Amino acid sequence: MARVVVDVMPKPEILDPQGQAALRALGRLGFAGIEEIRQGKHFEIEVDDTVDDATLEKIAEGFLANPVIEQWTITRVGA
Amino acid sequence: MARVVVDVMPKPEILDPQGQAALRALGRLGFAGIEEIRQGKHFEIEVDDTVDDATLEKIAEGFLANPVIEQWTITRVGA
Repeated sequence: MARVVVDVMPKPEILDPQGQAALRALGRLGFAGIEEIRQGKHFEIEVDDTVDDATLEKIAEGFLANPVIEQWTITRVGA
Repeated sequence: MARVVVDVMPKPEILDPQGQAALRALGRLGFAGIEEIRQGKHFEIEVDDTVDDATLEKIAEGFLANPVIEQWTITRVGA
């Protein structure tokens, strides 16, 4: 068994309305010094030892992210 | 300037319908060995040096997460 984390974020050139809304709201509420917020998705996945990196890449690209507008990182965090 | 990552996840005792839907879909599509998927939110925040950890905690607890059903981690990843 291994734990895998996949973080999916809007590509830098893609507008992120959720992050922008959070940023504006914090400004209105008086929090100073917050320059930028971008919001994405965080997946924690438990896989058995038969699941290799190529399979994880296929799952991230095909099902967890939209490769047209999103980028992702895959990290194995435990055994 | 510093970059802060906030990961927000449903608490372990809370059902996660999005993660469960992804898990079932992958099973139907023939991906074996995926035991569990839980889906949360991933925030990447740029803050200036006036923003201390207590402020970040307040922002995460009050605005990025719902403390009733979610837990979160705050990580400073760069200077």
